[in-house]
Amino acid sequence: METKAKGLLLIGDGLGDRRCPELDDQTPLEAAVKPNMDRLAAQGEVGLMDPISPGVRAGSDTAHLSMLGFDPYKCYTGRGPFEAMGIGLDVKQGDVAFRCNFGTVSDDFTITDRRAGRITEGTHELALAIDGMEIEGVKVLFKESVAHRAGMVLRGEGLGDKVSEIDPHTEGLKLMTATGADPASEKTARVLNLFAQESYQRLKDHPVNVARREKGLPPANIILPRGAGFAPHLGSFEAKHHMKGACIVEVGLVKGIGRYLGMTVIDVPGATGGLDTDTHAIGRAVVEAFKDHDWVLCNVKGPDIAGHDGNPKGKVEIIEKIDTMVGYLIEHLPAETTIAITGDHSTPCSVGDHTGEPVPILFWGPAVRGDNVQTFGERTAYQGAICRIPGTAIVPTFTSYMGCGEKFGA
Amino acid sequence: METKAKGLLLIGDGLGDRRCPELDDQTPLEAAVKPNMDRLAAQGEVGLMDPISPGVRAGSDTAHLSMLGFDPYKCYTGRGPFEAMGIGLDVKQGDVAFRCNFGTVSDDFTITDRRAGRITEGTHELALAIDGMEIEGVKVLFKESVAHRAGMVLRGEGLGDKVSEIDPHTEGLKLMTATGADPASEKTARVLNLFAQESYQRLKDHPVNVARREKGLPPANIILPRGAGFAPHLGSFEAKHHMKGACIVEVGLVKGIGRYLGMTVIDVPGATGGLDTDTHAIGRAVVEAFKDHDWVLCNVKGPDIAGHDGNPKGKVEIIEKIDTMVGYLIEHLPAETTIAITGDHSTPCSVGDHTGEPVPILFWGPAVRGDNVQTFGERTAYQGAICRIPGTAIVPTFTSYMGCGEKFGA
Repeated sequence: METKAKGLLLIGDGLGDRRCPELDDQTPLEAAVKPNMDRLAAQGEVGLMDPISPGVRAGSDTAHLSMLGFDPYKCYTGRGPFEAMGIGLDVKQGDVAFRCNFGTVSDDFTITDRRAGRITEGTHELALAIDGMEIEGVKVLFKESVAHRAGMVLRGEGLGDKVSEIDPHTEGLKLMTATGADPASEKTARVLNLFAQESYQRLKDHPVNVARREKGLPPANIILPRGAGFAPHLGSFEAKHHMKGACIVEVGLVKGIGRYLGMTVIDVPGATGGLDTDTHAIGRAVVEAFKDHDWVLCNVKGPDIAGHDGNPKGKVEIIEKIDTMVGYLIEHLPAETTIAITGDHSTPCSVGDHTGEPVPILFWGPAVRGDNVQTFGERTAYQGAICRIPGTAIVPTFTSYMGCGEKFGA
Repeated sequence: METKAKGLLLIGDGLGDRRCPELDDQTPLEAAVKPNMDRLAAQGEVGLMDPISPGVRAGSDTAHLSMLGFDPYKCYTGRGPFEAMGIGLDVKQGDVAFRCNFGTVSDDFTITDRRAGRITEGTHELALAIDGMEIEGVKVLFKESVAHRAGMVLRGEGLGDKVSEIDPHTEGLKLMTATGADPASEKTARVLNLFAQESYQRLKDHPVNVARREKGLPPANIILPRGAGFAPHLGSFEAKHHMKGACIVEVGLVKGIGRYLGMTVIDVPGATGGLDTDTHAIGRAVVEAFKDHDWVLCNVKGPDIAGHDGNPKGKVEIIEKIDTMVGYLIEHLPAETTIAITGDHSTPCSVGDHTGEPVPILFWGPAVRGDNVQTFGERTAYQGAICRIPGTAIVPTFTSYMGCGEKFGA
């Protein structure tokens, strides 16, 4: 197994769906005019893919970990680290990460509003006042997210993630003192308690809060971290799979995972993450990326957006745009490229959220044996040669086709 | 995912089979006239289900644990606890349970008969003399089973299950002294040794044994426990799956599992567990149960009985009775109900015991995408959209369809 070809995993985020009355009881993928995907399905193999396992509703983070070859049941340490990555914080293996709220406390640290009046403006300035703090040699990375939400990373030697919360989760109660379940976590707890005091000192008279008080709004004068989790030791994508990987993805959370695994994360101007995204630009960036990478993960977010919005026609349209991009890719990628197309989960328009049904998948390339299925859709996929596989099977299937998989045994 | 619909898992016990010469080489399920199951198969999705994993011969206990969402490889602690549940003993998490024999010993505790002459009568009275004993604060629950068999539960603080046996398993040898592999198991061993002495004291002159001696039969004057096992900490069905569950099942062992998981166990007058069972009464009980439960497990035992008896025609007939019940259920269950039909294992008539082949399964309901298969049987099921799933996938598939599954990840 000496030769090493190229591999492209193209994800339509939230691609899977259920029957839509608006589409004559077809799914958006079935209803879409998509000659290029159908051609790959006809020449290649199709099947169903459970991102995690049958029936389990996958998040984007767990699904992408799985599809990148990392079993989320073994490596997912909770939302903290992946949410922090999702908002663009630099998370490294060994960091302890948290989800946070901006909140309001009185002078004696009684919580008067756990969401600081659902603050929407000024959080970037407030976050700048917190970010970079150092406590007992531990560095604090802090960044605002949407509304009253934020993420925080503690980086330093000898931290643990078994800490109790400082947020009483009930207004009218006082801020609590964090404790640690082991010596390393006791250090994290000390840092957390000092952080709460210091965040109050830095925020209470911040200009954003002075202005809020003048308008009669509750000041965002405390940071309430929760959901502590260690960033897991996964090693790199390249060390695990012997392929140099790139990510061209629109979702921050997935970009974060790619960076965390040491993949090249390529930002594409015009990739908006919405239905109006520039799939031509994304397609050109994918072709470009193969010049110095073996394997590319490309995720177009639109289908998931349309699913969450209950918009089957929008989902059809974005799938058709992706199909045009697939046509461009077939023409411009090296001949030996293996292509897989699937979704990271189902986001049915009738539900508006992720569900646990399997997603259609196709594999196409010079080494793929092929089957009898001629079109790509939920109700053709199950008849194909791939049958039904878990997300963790995707990368090994690529490395087998591409000739770079390690032999297990002699 | 706010709405929560209803779900019914209907098990034909031992439903799967092999080709039967008596049925023109069809399986009983293929040969049965079953318009209602076929209708659900045609409108829904079918596939094959491995109760445990491919080829593994499932017991009713391990199969039902799996189909209730508890991986038996992780939670099955041996036959003791589940056999004790099966004969109707109250087993709680943390109890240590045993299978037992009634045996015969001489005055110096030499085993003269490990099965007390395969005693068949009077064991209930003997069991009453043992049940409720207390030793070192540990309560003994004891109940007779079939013939010389019985079950025992030790309930108390600080017990372990790593105890050696007191039964030498060879007649002519003396009763042995149990020892424990750790401090908690040493306590269990002490209790077990005292229990053996005390059981002899209570049984040796029991009227049942006086009568047996008069008839020249060996007295059942000792209890020989074996197969110690902790009752596992599983938590409740509702805590795990966020559904209020009920069991309408004919098999004692499965009732025991349902009770153990905190499900409502509903007894149905007329449900005999045989081929003559009243499937109308069972159907009515299922409809009634949905008034205050989200999810119902219904198991009809007959197909397994017919399989064990090598009776293909009887198996066809009970499947046809179940089909009539399915027709009643379709008419009377709330419109949003998701229904799955399968077996807990195959019990081929040509074998007369459980085998490891997968069992056909169908899912039907408003959210099910559907496939091209029109009938329900072993050799149509594999062509369907479910492909092949393990038993543990069943409840997650329900919760995905029903909108109450937890998202794994963000």
